Amino acid sequence: MPKVRLALAQTNPIVGDLDHNRQQIVDAVVKARDEGAKLVVFAEMSLTGYPIEDLATRKSFLLACKTALLALQNEFAKPEFSGMAVVIGLPTFAENPNGWAIANNSAVVIVGGEVIATYKKHHLPNYSVFDEYRNFVAEDVSANFEFAGLNFCLLICEDIWQQGGPVARIKSSNTDVALVLNGSPFEVDKDDKRLALVRSLATTQGCAVAYVNLVGGQDDLVFDGDSLFVAADGAVVSRSSQFKSDLMLIDIESKFAGEAITEHQNHKQDDLWQVWNALTTGLRDYVEKNGFRSVVLGLSGGIDSAVCAALAVDALGSSRVLGVSMPSKYSSDHSKSDAFDSAKRLGIEIQTQAIESMVVPFESQLKIDGLAAENLQARMRGAILMSISNAQGHLVLTTGNKTEIAVGYSTIYGDSVGGFAPIKDIEKSLVWKLAEWRNTQALAAGQIEPIPRNSITKPPSAELRPDQVDQDTLPEYDVLDAILDLYVEKRMGRQEIVNTGFDEHLVSRIINLVDQSEWKRRQGAIGPKITGMAFGRDRRLPITNKFRK
Amino acid sequence: MPKVRLALAQTNPIVGDLDHNRQQIVDAVVKARDEGAKLVVFAEMSLTGYPIEDLATRKSFLLACKTALLALQNEFAKPEFSGMAVVIGLPTFAENPNGWAIANNSAVVIVGGEVIATYKKHHLPNYSVFDEYRNFVAEDVSANFEFAGLNFCLLICEDIWQQGGPVARIKSSNTDVALVLNGSPFEVDKDDKRLALVRSLATTQGCAVAYVNLVGGQDDLVFDGDSLFVAADGAVVSRSSQFKSDLMLIDIESKFAGEAITEHQNHKQDDLWQVWNALTTGLRDYVEKNGFRSVVLGLSGGIDSAVCAALAVDALGSSRVLGVSMPSKYSSDHSKSDAFDSAKRLGIEIQTQAIESMVVPFESQLKIDGLAAENLQARMRGAILMSISNAQGHLVLTTGNKTEIAVGYSTIYGDSVGGFAPIKDIEKSLVWKLAEWRNTQALAAGQIEPIPRNSITKPPSAELRPDQVDQDTLPEYDVLDAILDLYVEKRMGRQEIVNTGFDEHLVSRIINLVDQSEWKRRQGAIGPKITGMAFGRDRRLPITNKFRK
Repeated sequence: MPKVRLALAQTNPIVGDLDHNRQQIVDAVVKARDEGAKLVVFAEMSLTGYPIEDLATRKSFLLACKTALLALQNEFAKPEFSGMAVVIGLPTFAENPNGWAIANNSAVVIVGGEVIATYKKHHLPNYSVFDEYRNFVAEDVSANFEFAGLNFCLLICEDIWQQGGPVARIKSSNTDVALVLNGSPFEVDKDDKRLALVRSLATTQGCAVAYVNLVGGQDDLVFDGDSLFVAADGAVVSRSSQFKSDLMLIDIESKFAGEAITEHQNHKQDDLWQVWNALTTGLRDYVEKNGFRSVVLGLSGGIDSAVCAALAVDALGSSRVLGVSMPSKYSSDHSKSDAFDSAKRLGIEIQTQAIESMVVPFESQLKIDGLAAENLQARMRGAILMSISNAQGHLVLTTGNKTEIAVGYSTIYGDSVGGFAPIKDIEKSLVWKLAEWRNTQALAAGQIEPIPRNSITKPPSAELRPDQVDQDTLPEYDVLDAILDLYVEKRMGRQEIVNTGFDEHLVSRIINLVDQSEWKRRQGAIGPKITGMAFGRDRRLPITNKFRK
Repeated sequence: MPKVRLALAQTNPIVGDLDHNRQQIVDAVVKARDEGAKLVVFAEMSLTGYPIEDLATRKSFLLACKTALLALQNEFAKPEFSGMAVVIGLPTFAENPNGWAIANNSAVVIVGGEVIATYKKHHLPNYSVFDEYRNFVAEDVSANFEFAGLNFCLLICEDIWQQGGPVARIKSSNTDVALVLNGSPFEVDKDDKRLALVRSLATTQGCAVAYVNLVGGQDDLVFDGDSLFVAADGAVVSRSSQFKSDLMLIDIESKFAGEAITEHQNHKQDDLWQVWNALTTGLRDYVEKNGFRSVVLGLSGGIDSAVCAALAVDALGSSRVLGVSMPSKYSSDHSKSDAFDSAKRLGIEIQTQAIESMVVPFESQLKIDGLAAENLQARMRGAILMSISNAQGHLVLTTGNKTEIAVGYSTIYGDSVGGFAPIKDIEKSLVWKLAEWRNTQALAAGQIEPIPRNSITKPPSAELRPDQVDQDTLPEYDVLDAILDLYVEKRMGRQEIVNTGFDEHLVSRIINLVDQSEWKRRQGAIGPKITGMAFGRDRRLPITNKFRK
């Protein structure tokens, strides 16, 4: 029987950095070769990063990809790679452009310097965060190739989530192993969905499945890796770790017999672990890939900024995080002390910039009070953070959570300023859970709790007027989050939500708040998606929109 | 021979306001009936407004549309509408949802309270600003109906811009008149393209074509109307005006013989007239449809704010526009006097808020200088405008032009603050042309020039430091705009642009500036699209993106 060592290379490319990504591919192939692998499979768009969005519609970009592919072919034509096959993902010029898109989302197999097979993605996802029908041309041609006595076919991501097309022809083509290249972003529970899908594909089509996913953050998406090898009987042979680059090795004897050579991550990590790691990965990669050295954020003593600071330290290390305490005359003593406690626990630098000296001349000249004066305080804080950023080069983090972004409980150009929003997709209830989880992890590891207990337990307040708490104007967060889940995530209408048992007036009020805040969300910073319906390109609604049912 | 009076109803619906739009339809049908029309045709999605974006994926919204359609059927079942047919556009539940989209983009024909024909759009545009493959399910079934002895077919917008599908079957179905419902947004030159397309359709398929377009602003889109009736020989029988609601009447005797009853707008308006009217329409409808009473903007004495103020006055009237002069110690005397001259010419209120008292305590506490201090001035101005807005309820207009938005020549959270950006899609060279054009129009009408000559002729400056002018850091605007046109509009790569004759280092610098400003553009206000490539959903690129070729 044939026996071939397969390597699934779970890489973290940088969108548009073709030189870097090409070198990353070569490095992984060298490592795989040194480990005895003959076939090395990379993820979807591993040459370019993913998603490339409208870069796919630029000729200059596709030409650069073609040049980079040729460079890889030349590299792998060298005798040291003799007998190896390398599968990568990249965009290629479409032979029949559809009028607006000019590229296919493709996978190529390189052997001895030649491209011996090319596959072009059939099912182009155009829902959720995906715009592939905008950017690519679909094809419906299977691509099989023989290697080491086995029959392999190529598929790309969405191809296995939909019915019909090349996926339906696997069985009839006598495929031994389906190589599936993916750019599948993290969502809570998606690991379970992918596993079930891949196992079902294997047993339905009677082939082993090698599922390779990207890893790393790209703007608002986080790819979690979690690559898989499943035998034709549905048995999980090997599984990669999440949120880390990896090179998984499997010896294949037949489609039913595979053996894991590298460590098999068979335990499922709990959801909070996954979310925390998705957030730190998204933040770290946004910082690193965009060339920032450090981040700055306001520390109010509240839970949101305390959690964001802890995420930043886990992502970047304490020396790269700067906290700023910006008390006003309404700030309680505990706000200031909790902010300093947070910084001390995390080992980060903190400075104080009281806003009184800025607010007073402003208020007196403009003669504002009430809501305008509340917003002014937040805007002075935003200007302070941006000034520090402009002077010192830090990326500003904005600490708003999904709940307040949903209902517009924030000041635009105030606390919303920043280039990245680490907890943008985390509802308030989950912010508390993450804080407890992270502290528990620390205690279990014999470390100090990174998030002050007081920040977790005290009633949330924006502290923009005396004795203000969030629940002066918002319902309890568990109720609010439950309604938002039905309205935003589940796309329910007003009546449907009321029918589940919530008060009609409350539901109408929340819907109004959400819809009237659309213009603020459009001007908000990006942040990592972890749910099935993140604000941003996952949920696209008009600003001018009178529908309230 | 049969003879029937057809009415093309060019309406301005409000997205999501089904009650309002339904009444608008009834009112137009009553008016058409009173003018003797028997067949009344409305535009694409005339019941809901367009685009509805992800509202199309909500069951509650589709149910509300169904209810509104039933109400219209009941209305038109009344004896007073006997013998009439009404064609409207709306989303309907798809019989075979595709997994994410659950609606068709449909047209229905109502006769005597019954829907006698339903057409479902075949070609779903998913390029430029359109996401219809995301939101709708495509069908490929022609819909013809007989009325007043003639054979009509239904088509929707993109159906006639692409090959194949129902449009290719018009001839074989012996159609006399194709009724085409459109939601076709304004772009410069699009009127000529539509006319040529409709005439070609008529002669190719041998049928008269009734082309009905929406009118009015919806977020970043402006529908210009310009509805058309063309006979089967390609002759233009009648044409509606642009940027106004209209009811165009045509008597049809056969597919070759139609007679315009209402005024036939056969002259093409010049491009600057069209752009100016697109901008005022977009601004007016954003203000009105979102319930603002008034707008506020900073008046710097420069060309951009002077043009925005003139647009606002043309859109809303001078009593609904407030200007704010916000001089700093670097502001020249002419800046202040030009700002007041602008206000005086426009008859708008202006107030002065010097920023020195706010900047000084801020600078001294934060010890900032250089770029950070320049940005601070812009941010204090932004905070002033937002404070006035918060206190008094005005919509803040941000006055940035397309050129500075392209290269990031603005301060985020500073001069970029605001809910609407009237000249966001107007490159600097065109801002000057519009100013000259508007002044010429005023003089020709015996009015005072609304834009100060000094604002047009003086060298542009942000005045954030002594004697600063834009050309300290940017190339001449004609050169800059030419390069941006190639890079942004034409999607050219660096080498292609250099090959047209521009300096290589300059091109690289401009490309870097554009790409590095992507994060700012993502947080920018919306504004009316008038070009083939507006920033916003027309051009979707990653923020994290290292490609610079």
